[in-house]
Amino acid sequence: MTTIYKNVYVKETATIAGEYEANGPLKKYFDRTYTKDLYFGETSFEKAEIKLLRDVTALILRKSRLKEKEVDVIISGDLSNQIAASDYAMRDFDIPFLGIYNACATSSEGMIIAANFIEGKIYKKCLVTTSSHNTAAEKQYRNPTEYGTPKPDTATFTVTGGAAILLTNEKTNIKITSSTIGKVIDKNTMDVNHMGAVMAPAAADTIYRHLTDLKRAPDYYDLILTGDLGIYGKEILLDYMKTAYNLDISKQYNDCGTMIYDLKKQPVFAGGSGPACSALVNFAYIYQALKEKKFKRVLLVPTGALFSPTLFFQKESLPAIAHAISLEVVE
Amino acid sequence: MTTIYKNVYVKETATIAGEYEANGPLKKYFDRTYTKDLYFGETSFEKAEIKLLRDVTALILRKSRLKEKEVDVIISGDLSNQIAASDYAMRDFDIPFLGIYNACATSSEGMIIAANFIEGKIYKKCLVTTSSHNTAAEKQYRNPTEYGTPKPDTATFTVTGGAAILLTNEKTNIKITSSTIGKVIDKNTMDVNHMGAVMAPAAADTIYRHLTDLKRAPDYYDLILTGDLGIYGKEILLDYMKTAYNLDISKQYNDCGTMIYDLKKQPVFAGGSGPACSALVNFAYIYQALKEKKFKRVLLVPTGALFSPTLFFQKESLPAIAHAISLEVVE
Repeated sequence: MTTIYKNVYVKETATIAGEYEANGPLKKYFDRTYTKDLYFGETSFEKAEIKLLRDVTALILRKSRLKEKEVDVIISGDLSNQIAASDYAMRDFDIPFLGIYNACATSSEGMIIAANFIEGKIYKKCLVTTSSHNTAAEKQYRNPTEYGTPKPDTATFTVTGGAAILLTNEKTNIKITSSTIGKVIDKNTMDVNHMGAVMAPAAADTIYRHLTDLKRAPDYYDLILTGDLGIYGKEILLDYMKTAYNLDISKQYNDCGTMIYDLKKQPVFAGGSGPACSALVNFAYIYQALKEKKFKRVLLVPTGALFSPTLFFQKESLPAIAHAISLEVVE
Repeated sequence: MTTIYKNVYVKETATIAGEYEANGPLKKYFDRTYTKDLYFGETSFEKAEIKLLRDVTALILRKSRLKEKEVDVIISGDLSNQIAASDYAMRDFDIPFLGIYNACATSSEGMIIAANFIEGKIYKKCLVTTSSHNTAAEKQYRNPTEYGTPKPDTATFTVTGGAAILLTNEKTNIKITSSTIGKVIDKNTMDVNHMGAVMAPAAADTIYRHLTDLKRAPDYYDLILTGDLGIYGKEILLDYMKTAYNLDISKQYNDCGTMIYDLKKQPVFAGGSGPACSALVNFAYIYQALKEKKFKRVLLVPTGALFSPTLFFQKESLPAIAHAISLEVVE
């Protein structure tokens, strides 16, 4: 089922990026970059990620000239166990909090929940925030970076950043026009170093349902943008869409994981990943491109591998999800 | 901010409880009990928790005679890292999925999101599910039970169970009438074996805001029921409400953590905890009591300690949250 919105708008965004992201091609679109090291003055990577979320939340409140009490709800999630970065960052804000988790698809999940609340006239101002931190994620999901564990080319590189978006019922030039909630898709893939392959079928399922529900051809959109499939996952998606659904989206298609870094120069394997990957690209670059009318209709499809190290060690395969949300320029 | 609902109803619930819960005073209210051991025929505690969620989801679909395609969205969360029990259970259902996490307050978070969607006429049928598993939680958060680590009396005992509730816009005798989303409250408590003390101020903040927003005295409700504060946390809450807010709720007040077990006979320390604690009590016993009109107006306040072992080892204090949702009998 795809939901159509008539009264949901993007009011503001805020982004903070780390060093690798600041050295990538989208540098000029970020509000702020923290490039000295990955600690940002904190004593651990986990606390550094909390700082990213705390700072980006304070930043969007300032950019949108809102007091905490004027925000109806903040919806936040991240990769850390117990979504700890969100939990601990939100201690500092006097705003009702809903914690969410859909791995790297978290920003789209939050935007859909917020859009539903606003379209339904339940709330007027909803903040959605997310973060990821490269070395915190590596430590939790794989091995501490210091171990120097080798990785294959299909691996992705977790983006360090914090990102926030404010959705409201106040008319702006950028409207949220529809959303399609993803289903959990598991094609029995077992390669934890190839998340693009794990997530591509989930993205394909959601894009197909979105276009079918709305009876739209892919060229309705100027851009269909998945979350973090990376260079190999991107190819798999195009191939899978053709094979499984007889749909060619190659003319409109791109992937945030391949856009956030300079893949020729930076040592990031198949590209970026993590909830902050699609959130930084979408809330910084895409938001600006929509404001400048470079794109007029964009379908964002952040993708998430619902990867549990515990269950992977118990020989379970890897489930994935992708949510779609469309943004359009209001003339 | 407290939201009033006019068109949200409870259509059905389903509950599956483990052995300790089946030996407690609420046994007769559970739809099903799994009492042979804590594996339920699976090869690990984590897979056993997935089974709980999978089975309770299938059960509520059967009890409410719904096909998967008739459900608009399933909102689920649990205690496991990456909310893995929810992610992996939902592979088996062809239903759009939103993953949530607010620790033991997860069921109320899900109910509020679902109620907002239905009140706003975005969706018509929303399933909310949650689970917890005693030995899976002990292993992840503390020590494997086999280590025999001693615990103080203020510790609580994670409930093993799966619970589901179906909210709809179709009129039934039990209406969801309002909700108050919690804020993250951290009073610098550092005792991981006294979660009642950690969560009581969060519950107090939410109950106070709820009553103040709606200009209600505590006696508007037949019952104000917190999630899992346990016997000591319950006392702290009553004391805190009086001291901080000059409110006496003692006549209406109880706590699910003290209701699910026989605290005199069962070796469960200060009582039950875990997302399934309040969900089993509310969806089994309270739901039945409302159907029988033993209670007519109930304020549910599931409580969650947003406890991260990683950040606790880094000397961070323990944040908490509580969401309130009111259920009333329609005459």
